[in-house]
Amino acid sequence: MNIVVIGLGVIGGSFTMALKEAGFENVYGIDINEESLEKAKKLGLIKEGFTNGEEIIKDADLIIISLYPRLVKQFIIDNKHNFKDGAIITDATGIKKMFIEDIVNILPQNIDFVFGHPMAGREKKGIDFATSEVFKGANYILTPVERNKEKNLELIEDLVYKLGFKRVKRITPEYHDEMIGYTSQLPHTIAVALVNSDIEGRETGNFIGDSYRDLTRIANINEDLWSELFLGNKNNLLKSIESFEEELDKIKNAIQEDDTESLRKLFIKSTKRREKL
Amino acid sequence: MNIVVIGLGVIGGSFTMALKEAGFENVYGIDINEESLEKAKKLGLIKEGFTNGEEIIKDADLIIISLYPRLVKQFIIDNKHNFKDGAIITDATGIKKMFIEDIVNILPQNIDFVFGHPMAGREKKGIDFATSEVFKGANYILTPVERNKEKNLELIEDLVYKLGFKRVKRITPEYHDEMIGYTSQLPHTIAVALVNSDIEGRETGNFIGDSYRDLTRIANINEDLWSELFLGNKNNLLKSIESFEEELDKIKNAIQEDDTESLRKLFIKSTKRREKL
Repeated sequence: MNIVVIGLGVIGGSFTMALKEAGFENVYGIDINEESLEKAKKLGLIKEGFTNGEEIIKDADLIIISLYPRLVKQFIIDNKHNFKDGAIITDATGIKKMFIEDIVNILPQNIDFVFGHPMAGREKKGIDFATSEVFKGANYILTPVERNKEKNLELIEDLVYKLGFKRVKRITPEYHDEMIGYTSQLPHTIAVALVNSDIEGRETGNFIGDSYRDLTRIANINEDLWSELFLGNKNNLLKSIESFEEELDKIKNAIQEDDTESLRKLFIKSTKRREKL
Repeated sequence: MNIVVIGLGVIGGSFTMALKEAGFENVYGIDINEESLEKAKKLGLIKEGFTNGEEIIKDADLIIISLYPRLVKQFIIDNKHNFKDGAIITDATGIKKMFIEDIVNILPQNIDFVFGHPMAGREKKGIDFATSEVFKGANYILTPVERNKEKNLELIEDLVYKLGFKRVKRITPEYHDEMIGYTSQLPHTIAVALVNSDIEGRETGNFIGDSYRDLTRIANINEDLWSELFLGNKNNLLKSIESFEEELDKIKNAIQEDDTESLRKLFIKSTKRREKL
């Protein structure tokens, strides 16, 4: 099986590493950055790298796309005459509903696009920060569409288990975006707001413990990618932010009223929920 | 030097472990829980444990109090005739201004209370979760008061460096409470609200990555301790929550308006600030 990874950034690079460790040998890379290709080749992660992938795409049985969402559509359009008959494409995009509608409309009929989302990443960008470690034990989500072939869905499921993922769930694109709005985009929103609400000029670094460090790690955020993700899942994210604000108000009110009992109840609720995870 | 640790919970227990590793031998423990005392003695963390500490307190050169804030005052009142002349007391309380005012008023003149705050902890309670590891590389804050003797402040500084802390800062109780409202209490508030804002019954666990895990770790929270800490630093915490809400609104507005450029700017700001930490 010839596998081509499109985009050797932090996620695409991690895919090539995990593929190598899982024993896949015919792995190729496409990127506009020649240095990334050279690095991947030097590390033995890819057999060959291409800045123009036309030729290798013609031989690809499986294409793993790790590009910013808006670039995926362009990639499909540019290559619609290059794809091998029956090729499988999968992706790593963090939003699904709007994204899938866009893609399905332009996808050649003889290509099967299995939409996926590895729930793993790093706050840094580029192949230098790629590591297969982030995949180990992580969650993977597939959002099947009607035209997907069952055998291709199973092929991707098998593959990602081999790459180290622990749990693969199939859900609808709508449910994916609702859940991700809460479990991924809301935490990123909160981390950014937390860091930005610091008063300029304080020596905050001297007064932090693990809690601040943990809650702000993802405030180090790729502004191009995440602005796309946020706006591509606007309504779900806004709903999540509003529910969060309601809970924040409950705590604020309890503090304002010196209401120990309500505070304790809110803490007991969050403790029980967190322990269940 | 005889050291007595009052309260062998997760923090007091961690102190006894770090003291042992640093080579201190004359360490004693006081706790109302006999099991905790037995465990500490079995592990060689204390020479002897006491549920009634009257006698050992009379011999204590240094007393480390790791009790809930409201219990510290009672401990001082109960033992004001037991303290050895010139004894040093220190604490691990997460709020300072109101707390110090309370204590200073009832403290015998011949005792020096060096108020401290190890910026390290765990979300679990009890000696079973104690570990000296949390102290390694962590920040320590001292909030000196006028009557503190310089040599005693230095003694505590030297001690906590020996216990593994990396940085000790001296600041006013007011500044401590302002900073801690932001770096510790606000993150706890946010984590609780984030977990509590989940919609009941969803299989959230299948859709989380490291970001949700990191941001909610401290939603597992000791309700008795933290309701005291929040209400004991009410105004600072409320101010921090309000600043945070203002930043959250900026993100929310940018999403509502599909304003990519503003989103990108907010992300660039948080990234720069986080990298500086």
